[in-house]
Amino acid sequence: MIRIGIAGYGNLGRGLVLAIAKNPDLSLEVILTRRDPARLLAETLVPVARLADAAQWQNAVDVMVLCSGSATDLPEQGPQLARLFHTVDSFDTHARIPAYFSAMNQAALETGHLSLISCGWDPGLFSLARVLFNSVLPDGHDYTFWGKGVSQGHSDAIRRIPGVQDARQYTMPYPQALTAARGPQNPSLAIREKHWRDCYIVAEPGADRKAIEQAVVTMPDYFADYETKVTFISQEELQTNHGTLPHGGFVIRNAETSPGCRQVAELQLQLDSNPEFTASTLAAYARAVARLAKQGQRGAITVLDIPVAALSPLPPERLRAEFI
Amino acid sequence: MIRIGIAGYGNLGRGLVLAIAKNPDLSLEVILTRRDPARLLAETLVPVARLADAAQWQNAVDVMVLCSGSATDLPEQGPQLARLFHTVDSFDTHARIPAYFSAMNQAALETGHLSLISCGWDPGLFSLARVLFNSVLPDGHDYTFWGKGVSQGHSDAIRRIPGVQDARQYTMPYPQALTAARGPQNPSLAIREKHWRDCYIVAEPGADRKAIEQAVVTMPDYFADYETKVTFISQEELQTNHGTLPHGGFVIRNAETSPGCRQVAELQLQLDSNPEFTASTLAAYARAVARLAKQGQRGAITVLDIPVAALSPLPPERLRAEFI
Repeated sequence: MIRIGIAGYGNLGRGLVLAIAKNPDLSLEVILTRRDPARLLAETLVPVARLADAAQWQNAVDVMVLCSGSATDLPEQGPQLARLFHTVDSFDTHARIPAYFSAMNQAALETGHLSLISCGWDPGLFSLARVLFNSVLPDGHDYTFWGKGVSQGHSDAIRRIPGVQDARQYTMPYPQALTAARGPQNPSLAIREKHWRDCYIVAEPGADRKAIEQAVVTMPDYFADYETKVTFISQEELQTNHGTLPHGGFVIRNAETSPGCRQVAELQLQLDSNPEFTASTLAAYARAVARLAKQGQRGAITVLDIPVAALSPLPPERLRAEFI
Repeated sequence: MIRIGIAGYGNLGRGLVLAIAKNPDLSLEVILTRRDPARLLAETLVPVARLADAAQWQNAVDVMVLCSGSATDLPEQGPQLARLFHTVDSFDTHARIPAYFSAMNQAALETGHLSLISCGWDPGLFSLARVLFNSVLPDGHDYTFWGKGVSQGHSDAIRRIPGVQDARQYTMPYPQALTAARGPQNPSLAIREKHWRDCYIVAEPGADRKAIEQAVVTMPDYFADYETKVTFISQEELQTNHGTLPHGGFVIRNAETSPGCRQVAELQLQLDSNPEFTASTLAAYARAVARLAKQGQRGAITVLDIPVAALSPLPPERLRAEFI
């Protein structure tokens, strides 16, 4: 059995509890939280402890899965926990990955641990696909599309507008851009040429809806450069029709191996639940980290450094006989 | 520079010459052939030598890419060449992979070499996707679809029928089966429920077309269990409209992470040229084999044992900064 700990108990942490239950060789040993452990205990049926007491769990846990947010929590907690445990996380601030890698590498090397960073689907499986496709098809173009899916960052940005009670933003790929990305013209496409933004907003009673809509569509970075559609709905409708967190996307490599000889490779994900899928991916990679750590690997790594065989609970002979 | 040799100069070997030219860190050192080297020399602009003289090239080649057929050539040539070189091959007789792995492993270990077997797209990238998707989504169903693409085995089977001058068989996925594989019913689908067979046949002058069609549609294993369409065409039409070797397919994993929460992962390939794509894949994996051999890895391995970072010509820092 590979003994797993969870640090942070939001959507991702809850997804990890489900994911561990689907993997008979993984056992959940403890959930670490900054909240009052007594309040979570009844909900989870496993030991819950204070994040501040993490060091007490060093001998009980083979891999700690870090389920906190990338914006402020992981940059601080990540290196602290990498000093105590082998770790897996889903750090997803793309621009800060090199700095985070460096901090995690130092913490893990100093204390003899192995830390996999930026796992999940993007970064994660999409990163894997981009490097794989680029390597086997060196002469071509890359396209990453996201959606249809809920962007929590964009939803939060709408919620900060005065008069907004709640909001849900879907990132939507243009079907015609997807078709073009797979076709012979192999176009250069900016992010705003690939996606539009579909917003469902609950206004506070008496709020100025025209002003809210204007504030959304002109918001720099988030919406101003995109085709953006705003629909006002009731809180009840938002809960009923927009209560889940679907996501997904497409990584496309459109290449030639000789003049006019087109080769298109594509990874697609259609996810009913973004956090549950991310958690399910983290669980498989936690298995790999436990194995590679046992073999003596140390320091920070990414999904690019892990052979796929290490993710599977099946022995190599069965993988060769049944899956190759 | 990583010095590559090619053993076998058919469609795949020719594709490899193109692929090596697309990878500036790979150099083509020699083509080994069972034919008369003098006849190939003019065509290829690189040294051509007899396969029987392979041992003379041991110090000139870092990785030998085996481009012969799986049916009879590789089972014999593979272990012989694995005694002389680090190797990469595309052995694709799925049922015999464990036995071939064992033979290659023994030959490579005895002589201190590293041999990657069964690389390409299926087996190869599709195998990678099957294991990856199964690992990150343990509770679900797998679907592999092939096509639209030319099956050379099925085309050959038609050509052996008396009265047939030439033939091309396309394996065709049913669009409705693809849709079902991605949907909530998650059906069990036999190969014949996923594919039909589209046959273009050039009959010899005066041949009995009805008899030929009957021989095709009733042929056991190849066609009898499938919906099969036969169209007679002229040799000229076959050359003009069916002269290339497109292929491709879909690996789909349709899973749940909690009751009713569907997660679908899918790899798609649309290939204008099956041999050129396979060759392009072998070139990237030859790079990885050269690197892993330098690190001391020995014996037989599969695509499941190779971290994706080893396939790329880019250094890890750039991969982390630009692709994660």
